Amino acid sequence: MNVHDKTLRTQATAAPEVTTGALTGSRKVYSTPEGHDGVRVPLRQIDLSNGEAFRVYDPSGPYTDDAAKIDVKRGLDPVRAAWITGRGGVEAYEGRAIKPEDNGGVGDKHLAEAFEVTRQPLRGLPGAPVTQLEFARAGIVTDEMVYIAHRENVGRQQAAEEARARLDDGESFGAAVPEFVTPEFVRDEVARGRAIIPANINHPESEPMIIGRNFLTKINANIGNSAVTSSVEEEVEKMVWAIRWGADTVMDLSTGHNIHTTREWIIRNAPVPIGTVPIYQALEKVDGDPVKLDWEVYKDTLIEQCEQGVDYFTIHAGVRLGYIHLTADRVTGIVSRGGSIMAKWCLSRHKESFLYERFGDICDIMRKYDVSFSLGDGLRPGAIADANDRAQFAELETLGELTKVAWDKGCQVMIEGPGHVPMHKIKVNVEKQLRECGEAPFYTLGPLVTDIAPAYDHITSAIGAGMIGWFGTSMLCYVTPKEHLGLPDRDDVKAGVMAYKIAAHAADLAKGHPAAQARDDAISHARFEFRWEDQFNLSLDPDTARDYHDQTLPKEAHKLAHFCSMCGPKFCSMEITQQVRDYAAKLNDKGVLSSSEAVEQARKQGMDEMSEKFRELGEEVYIERE
Amino acid sequence: MNVHDKTLRTQATAAPEVTTGALTGSRKVYSTPEGHDGVRVPLRQIDLSNGEAFRVYDPSGPYTDDAAKIDVKRGLDPVRAAWITGRGGVEAYEGRAIKPEDNGGVGDKHLAEAFEVTRQPLRGLPGAPVTQLEFARAGIVTDEMVYIAHRENVGRQQAAEEARARLDDGESFGAAVPEFVTPEFVRDEVARGRAIIPANINHPESEPMIIGRNFLTKINANIGNSAVTSSVEEEVEKMVWAIRWGADTVMDLSTGHNIHTTREWIIRNAPVPIGTVPIYQALEKVDGDPVKLDWEVYKDTLIEQCEQGVDYFTIHAGVRLGYIHLTADRVTGIVSRGGSIMAKWCLSRHKESFLYERFGDICDIMRKYDVSFSLGDGLRPGAIADANDRAQFAELETLGELTKVAWDKGCQVMIEGPGHVPMHKIKVNVEKQLRECGEAPFYTLGPLVTDIAPAYDHITSAIGAGMIGWFGTSMLCYVTPKEHLGLPDRDDVKAGVMAYKIAAHAADLAKGHPAAQARDDAISHARFEFRWEDQFNLSLDPDTARDYHDQTLPKEAHKLAHFCSMCGPKFCSMEITQQVRDYAAKLNDKGVLSSSEAVEQARKQGMDEMSEKFRELGEEVYIERE
Repeated sequence: MNVHDKTLRTQATAAPEVTTGALTGSRKVYSTPEGHDGVRVPLRQIDLSNGEAFRVYDPSGPYTDDAAKIDVKRGLDPVRAAWITGRGGVEAYEGRAIKPEDNGGVGDKHLAEAFEVTRQPLRGLPGAPVTQLEFARAGIVTDEMVYIAHRENVGRQQAAEEARARLDDGESFGAAVPEFVTPEFVRDEVARGRAIIPANINHPESEPMIIGRNFLTKINANIGNSAVTSSVEEEVEKMVWAIRWGADTVMDLSTGHNIHTTREWIIRNAPVPIGTVPIYQALEKVDGDPVKLDWEVYKDTLIEQCEQGVDYFTIHAGVRLGYIHLTADRVTGIVSRGGSIMAKWCLSRHKESFLYERFGDICDIMRKYDVSFSLGDGLRPGAIADANDRAQFAELETLGELTKVAWDKGCQVMIEGPGHVPMHKIKVNVEKQLRECGEAPFYTLGPLVTDIAPAYDHITSAIGAGMIGWFGTSMLCYVTPKEHLGLPDRDDVKAGVMAYKIAAHAADLAKGHPAAQARDDAISHARFEFRWEDQFNLSLDPDTARDYHDQTLPKEAHKLAHFCSMCGPKFCSMEITQQVRDYAAKLNDKGVLSSSEAVEQARKQGMDEMSEKFRELGEEVYIERE
Repeated sequence: MNVHDKTLRTQATAAPEVTTGALTGSRKVYSTPEGHDGVRVPLRQIDLSNGEAFRVYDPSGPYTDDAAKIDVKRGLDPVRAAWITGRGGVEAYEGRAIKPEDNGGVGDKHLAEAFEVTRQPLRGLPGAPVTQLEFARAGIVTDEMVYIAHRENVGRQQAAEEARARLDDGESFGAAVPEFVTPEFVRDEVARGRAIIPANINHPESEPMIIGRNFLTKINANIGNSAVTSSVEEEVEKMVWAIRWGADTVMDLSTGHNIHTTREWIIRNAPVPIGTVPIYQALEKVDGDPVKLDWEVYKDTLIEQCEQGVDYFTIHAGVRLGYIHLTADRVTGIVSRGGSIMAKWCLSRHKESFLYERFGDICDIMRKYDVSFSLGDGLRPGAIADANDRAQFAELETLGELTKVAWDKGCQVMIEGPGHVPMHKIKVNVEKQLRECGEAPFYTLGPLVTDIAPAYDHITSAIGAGMIGWFGTSMLCYVTPKEHLGLPDRDDVKAGVMAYKIAAHAADLAKGHPAAQARDDAISHARFEFRWEDQFNLSLDPDTARDYHDQTLPKEAHKLAHFCSMCGPKFCSMEITQQVRDYAAKLNDKGVLSSSEAVEQARKQGMDEMSEKFRELGEEVYIERE
């Protein structure tokens, strides 16, 4: 039985408190694609003061639905449960029993309250498709694919007429972003391995989403306690908080005590895919000594986490024995935790990595639960000096080799990327990854474009993330201001998510995504028309935008003012532009000249003749408004 | 007399309080190039715990020199005074009298205390070189050029051997960054207009610096009160605060009252070039009504500010009558204050811009004081939708035409650029600017790569700034978190400067600047070796880095710890890397195999043979440290 042994639960702590309620100025709406009554896609709707409404992609789950009842002790509704069992090929079974070492052997005194698990785990049966990749290859459009197509289309209906023009105006470096996303397009992208749907059959609470460069650029937020700091409660709230501001997936990188319990609370309450690095927990099971790791303890951990519902695993199977000493001359050597665990294991045993040697077995396990691979870059550069070196690229070549193995086994795959890379060396990372890994989605950490700004690495890395997203990375793993210095708290999580929402959106804009610029246009129209509340509400962070505005102009009346504190009430450039507009309309009405004619005349013939024409329009052209 | 009329001074407020003292872990040092005893170039020296020292470029002036006596009422020492008078061609004269309207006609009650001016202004005489451009063309290397060459070379001596390799490794898009900067190189770059030295002969307090794409990428910080908020005291401190964190120039964008007095306090205390937009003050002199502006009031304002010592003027002479209605269909029209003032003027009078028509006269005035042009982009896009449109580029073409006029008149010129531009449209801005304006330095505001993140526009714009700096922009004008929302306070100024120091340094790295990566390497070495204090002190913001670290590991002992709160004491990736290094050294000593051989063997021959070789080294290879 997977139900937690009551005798272990000694601390009856309160259930985690999480942030609920709609974002300021927004409300949750649901949209159902025609002919699919069971599919309810959540969106965030911003109602504007001019009567219009603007809808945005919304990964925040029921927490931002004022009508939803949130009970963290019960977990979220299993929205996908009926789809998973309905298509067959899975069976419920007793599952692995929870052992004390799953929580790092923590004593009763420090053991966190367990989440009450009420379902048996599911696993795939042989001979039938289980993973989204297998369904896609079989030509089957799953409910998840229908859901995703509808979700990715937000704004596309409105942008339909200009979709082609937007795409042509962008530069996507060979991506194939469609004007409109059909379920069949989703299926085809998954079938060819160019996109993944991380969706463990034991995580029915998750709202389907897709990671691939022909879809919206996604972002991941890392959370997780360590041996030094933080609690279960904090981590569940961090997850809810991260998705509130826009994180599309969350990785639980917990180490130390209560690792199983923390993860259970997170997954049961997560409407987004959850990723982990199983080697972290495996290491806890062998008292933190990498040398003691072996296939059995790793396999046990994989199954434990597959049954819990983790949606993707970072697996550093590319850290091969023969690559390790390539890092010896680096400035910062191996900076990936998983990478260095495996390096230590390989060196101490003088053996090839068991993750590499057992890769086929790992695939067989993950396929049964549809856990996606996130092939880890254990040898990623941790300093500008180490970027794009032989160690990094040797590993990437191996990840390409493993991608094909996983695909053959029916598993979904994405590939992790760096790290620390100066701007001029970013593009080749994407090009090489796409080539080596058959266009499997790329998932990068930043990259940071300089090493010199600890405490500001959300910014150093947002520069790299924006660029690498544009070049073709499918998901950007955030970096918080605490990177290199400590574990992120709630504020850091928000700062990281904000920087990465910016980078991801900037990437979508540059690629020419048909609906991306609609939001920029909406906010800019609001700005121009002094609809302050709309400007705040359309922004990534309405609360902070409003707060900053109010620091100089706090009065309610100022929100209706046709000026701001930059120029003051006496003079306002936006106000003047309105006069320009009126004037141009007048010129147009009188048929004086077209735009291009005006320029040509101004440039070539001098101004005398022009001035004459303007004068003919009379003094009424200038309208004094001050 | 330029001395302030005492009868006007009614408020005896205290002198502005400014932040002094060295940055944590740093101290001010001065370096003198051989054979130039009068040239003392200030640098920030970071003394490391391993006995090494690291020097960085330092625009913060005497404020960060613990030995300097700061008296804000007296102003800084006029370090350039002897050079300016020594080379002749200038005369002192009585100067323009200060009038009530210079301070916006503020009543006695709100008039700020005047700065006690004790020098007569200087102006150039006809027939002799006055501007740095004129000296450069005459083949003369000025003291400023000697100073700048030495200043720009910081770190290059140490990097000498790898300078060529660094440059070859970078991508500078046709820039010509030298391995080593000689005074003659500075002269030649100034002579051909590819760099400027903003250095008004009436601002002898300024420490010479250069703006050009073959030099370090510079950043500017905007400060300035408005009719709505802030005081003289706050603005002087903002200037000192901005340069403390690395701003290379500061623009005083004050509007409203006390505009002359605020500027005087700022300039007399500024070791960096100060820029202004003279039309803002001219507008105050005509009660804020653009229609009342004329050449006389503008000319009067230019002379007033030339005599005060402003180093560069933003002049929106490219906003021609014929271009204005090109903005009519824009989402946000004209967003530049200067641009919209001139648009209003042109429209209301049905006349070509007096700035354009009087451009030659403006040059004649500015040449006499060596005030550099910053040709303003009054028609820059204020929204993603408006980027790279005809209005923007038509103006840029005119700026190119005016650049040649200014050069003919002996004036130094840089060109302002956008604004709001999506990533894929940034590069063409630089290419067109270089082409149209004969490689005159480009000076851009961001650009912001999306409109949707008010309150985070230091980040949206740092992405664009990093990229445009890499492509060839010489100076990046910062954007603070308050952009679009309010005026920046002290915290916002720092946030903006930090984001832009990151962008500028990332640009230098990507261009292959010979000495840029040295700082990344130094901090990464410190990181790898757990020299926490060195890591903090080498960073852009030692205080915040230390503070973030201490939030999780506050004890002093932890600063010596070989771990951090991310992984905890039990397991540490950096520690493991040290073992890899020891191991590789051992392999090397025993001549087992070279790096590339190891990879080839691992990839091609499988691992059996390799494992055998590793085994031969015996168990001592693995060193348990935990």
